[in-house]
Order: sequence, then structure tokens, then C-alpha cells
Amino acid sequence: MQKIFDFFTQNNEFGKNIGVKLIEVKYGYAKVQMQVKKFHLNLAGVCHGGAIFTLADYAFAVASNSFGKVSLGINANISYINAAKEGDILIAEAKLVDESNRLGTYEIKVTDNNKVIALLNGTVYKTTKNFEELKNDLQ
Amino acid sequence: MQKIFDFFTQNNEFGKNIGVKLIEVKYGYAKVQMQVKKFHLNLAGVCHGGAIFTLADYAFAVASNSFGKVSLGINANISYINAAKEGDILIAEAKLVDESNRLGTYEIKVTDNNKVIALLNGTVYKTTKNFEELKNDLQ
Amino acid sequence: MQKIFDFFTQNNEFGKNIGVKLIEVKYGYAKVQMQVKKFHLNLAGVCHGGAIFTLADYAFAVASNSFGKVSLGINANISYINAAKEGDILIAEAKLVDESNRLGTYEIKVTDNNKVIALLNGTVYKTTKNFEELKNDLQ
Amino acid sequence: MQKIFDFFTQNNEFGKNIGVKLIEVKYGYAKVQMQVKKFHLNLAGVCHGGAIFTLADYAFAVASNSFGKVSLGINANISYINAAKEGDILIAEAKLVDESNRLGTYEIKVTDNNKVIALLNGTVYKTTKNFEELKNDLQ
Repeated sequence: MQKIFDFFTQNNEFGKNIGVKLIEVKYGYAKVQMQVKKFHLNLAGVCHGGAIFTLADYAFAVASNSFGKVSLGINANISYINAAKEGDILIAEAKLVDESNRLGTYEIKVTDNNKVIALLNGTVYKTTKNFEELKNDLQ
Repeated sequence: MQKIFDFFTQNNEFGKNIGVKLIEVKYGYAKVQMQVKKFHLNLAGVCHGGAIFTLADYAFAVASNSFGKVSLGINANISYINAAKEGDILIAEAKLVDESNRLGTYEIKVTDNNKVIALLNGTVYKTTKNFEELKNDLQ
Repeated sequence: MQKIFDFFTQNNEFGKNIGVKLIEVKYGYAKVQMQVKKFHLNLAGVCHGGAIFTLADYAFAVASNSFGKVSLGINANISYINAAKEGDILIAEAKLVDESNRLGTYEIKVTDNNKVIALLNGTVYKTTKNFEELKNDLQ
Repeated sequence: MQKIFDFFTQNNEFGKNIGVKLIEVKYGYAKVQMQVKKFHLNLAGVCHGGAIFTLADYAFAVASNSFGKVSLGINANISYINAAKEGDILIAEAKLVDESNRLGTYEIKVTDNNKVIALLNGTVYKTTKNFEELKNDLQ
């Protein structure tokens, strides 16, 4: 899995720019981390929902792409449960719940020191292509 | 509304850092814009779902806070419909659908030149506080 | 479309049993109706969320299957906006928002006399089979 | 909890009419059961999404109302993972994930003999009223 880990670490511009760090990847599983900085704050001075979503979504993307073929996110539902503050170190863990030939469903939990910050449920459409093939298609 | 417009423009660290620009705000309505740059790309070389979510969520936040009291996002559901590419200028428009004393529901549409990129539905819990009061509570 | 209308009217056991009536069907569109009866009430004496969901879901199913090939619902997100009471005549309208080769996204609005009761967003996976072929596969 | 169990068993018209049976209730938890019959079938001859939703929603309602004060469902997101067929005995288990003063978030899993059929995530708004008081307000 080291190769997969390296691939995900090196190829996600947006995740890197937001400060998301990949911790672990297994088939159908990913764990990522982000420390809340001034950069991530919203109007109320707490971590922006979009930043929490991006952290969860990053874990979701890595987990759902851990099998080597590209999975495209088609739907995600997030519930915000507790606020996250500057300095908090947030962890997002994504797990495959179940899948069929074409679709996969994942649950992603965002926590701060075991306090639940948000829950995301996501569905992917599983393509039969790898990333290089897909890039050519999409562009 | 100029004062509200200025407030939202000056006080959202994360939105600014992501490249989201506020275009218009009315009661229960907001329009924002973001150009997709290399910064926003994901593993497949198209705009990251988290960046699209953040754009939509920013419009949602401004629209739901346009009445002067703080509204907290409690749930958001996003459906990704078409991919957005580097160079695209994305627009997100948020509209209040309906509200009760305590809750409000918004629809946010993200488009690129009238092509639908994503749809987000969001629910807020309406507090009775302004931003300064809330900051003191949350921190 | 009369043939399609008849097909949907005659073949949905659950919809019929719940009291859902098909009003109109066009490509990518359906309108259905249900009067709230004692049958549909929940613990609080108003229309059960499951009954409102079923009404919306029925419109969603007809609209997404109006093209002749089977579409399978993979995700639905419902926001409850106002309560519906015994005697109310609820209308659900489903509209196709956008689609790709394999996926379609629909918005369904449930109203009582123009008051919004609930909003549902749904995603389908479009198979290449008709109903008879699918029945054989699933059973 | 016997009193609460009896209350929920006797007062939900729609659940009873659909064939949902309450198995167990604890604070923030409920387990319910429904056997898929011809009554529940959809156009494709498998269990209607609305029936699966109603089963999950019933567990959600009981769990979120197990504390004695009324909780109102404001949002629910369901992902359909596997089809359920006539004869299947479906179980739905609802668990409180986390809550604040005013809001609660629940996860509901629908299974058939340990195979996941659907996942529902739901958010409630917690009122300070009991059912009798609420009925008077709503009607």
C-alpha cells in the first residue's frame, strides 16, 4: 500500500493546500488529519463547514480510490454535530460500508480527541479506469 | 445591504483563502463566484468536491446569515452532477426555501455558464445572537 | 405517454396501498397526490415522515423511470419544512435536474396548497434494462 | 421503559399500517422489524424505497423520542445499498450519535440477516414538549 499512500500524498493539490495530511490507507479505508488554523475559520470564528467537509471528503476520496480504479463521488451528506476551534487536531476516518458492481457507500467520521465533530455519508460511482485514463477523458 | 456585504467580505478567512468572491447578498439570498485554479484540483485533475462544496456552503452561509442573527449549518447534502475544470468560473446561488422560528432550509445551485455542476440542500438552526455574541460563546 | 401512465398506475403495490395517486407523467417529470388520512398519522398526530417520503419517492420513481429503462434510487435526502395534517391534500412534483450516461439527479417538492411541506433530492443509477428484465435479475 | 414501549406500540397509525413492529427501546435507541410482503413491492418487484425508509424512520422516531420530550425530524438522508425482497425480515436499529441542547443526530441501519439494506442519517429538533402538548400546538 506504500505506493498508493505516496500517490495520494503527492497528487491532491486542494487537500495539500487546505492542510490535510494522509495518515493511513487500506483497502476501503483511509485516515486523514488536519489542524484547525486561522486559515480555516468562518464568520463565527470557528472552523468553516467547508473545511470540515473537505477533510471528510478527502478521507472519502482516498478510501474509495484505494482499490486502484477511479471512484467518482456522486453524493455526500454531512451533519455538523459539534464546532471545531482553532488549534483542534481533527481526524477523519472513512470506511466502506457496502458496495455493488458500480456503486459504493462510505461512512466518514470526523473527531477531535474522540468528540464527534461531523458525520458524512458518501456514495461513489465506480469507473473501470485508472487515474491516467480518467484524466484524458475529463480534459 | 452594503454593510452586510462588507461584513461578509471581510470576515471569512477560509472563503477568502479558497478564492471565493461574494457577488451579491439580499435577505435570504447570496451569489458567490470562484474560478477553478490548479489550487483546487483533485486526484483526477478536476475541481475537488470539497472546493465545490465550500463555494456552495459559502453562499449558503451568507444567505442564511443575511438577516443579522447567526444561523448555524446543521446539515448539508450535495449531489455532484458535472465535473468542473481548471479555468471554469463557477457561480453558486443560495436561496431560502422556507423557514420556521428556529430552522431554515436553503437550496444552493452551482453552475458553470448555466451548466449545473452541483446541487446542495442545507438546513440551519437560527440562533438569537449576532456574531460578536456567538464568538464569545463558542470560544 | 398514456401507456406509461397506465403502467405506473397498475404496478406499484406500495404506492397504491399508501393512497398515492398518479396525476401526470412526462419524460423526466411526475406529479402525484395523496390525501392525509388517519392512516398516515404519527405519534404527534400529524402526517408521518415516512408517508411524506413515500409520496415524494413515488413521484421520484415515476419521473426517473419515465424513459422506459429502469432507474434505481441510490440516495435520497429529505428536509421536512412544515407539518402536514389530517385532511391535507399533498402534491409531489418530481423534476429531472440533470443526468449523465449512468446517473440522474431529481428534485421533488411536496406542497399543500402551495405551502412547502418537504423537499427531497434523489439520485438514480440508470440501468439499461426494462422492468421485466430487471425483475428476472432481482429475483 | 415498558411504558414507553407500550406508548410507541399503540400510537403510531402509519407504522402499524405498514407492518412495522417495535422490538426494543432504550434511551436513544430503538430496534424495529418488518417483513417484506406483496404490500411493500415497487415497480421492479422488490421492496419499495418508501417502505424501507418508513421502517428506518420509525426506529429513528422512537429512539429520538425515547427521552419523553418530543423530537421532530428535520432532515433524513438514506442510501440504498442492497435490494430487499418479498419474505425478507428487515431489522432497523437506530442509535443516537450525538446531541446538543436543541439538536440530535441518529444513525439507522437497516439489515436483512446482517446484510446491509440501507443506511439512514437523521437530525431532530428537540422540543421541550410532551406529545399531548405538541398535539394541541400542531392542530
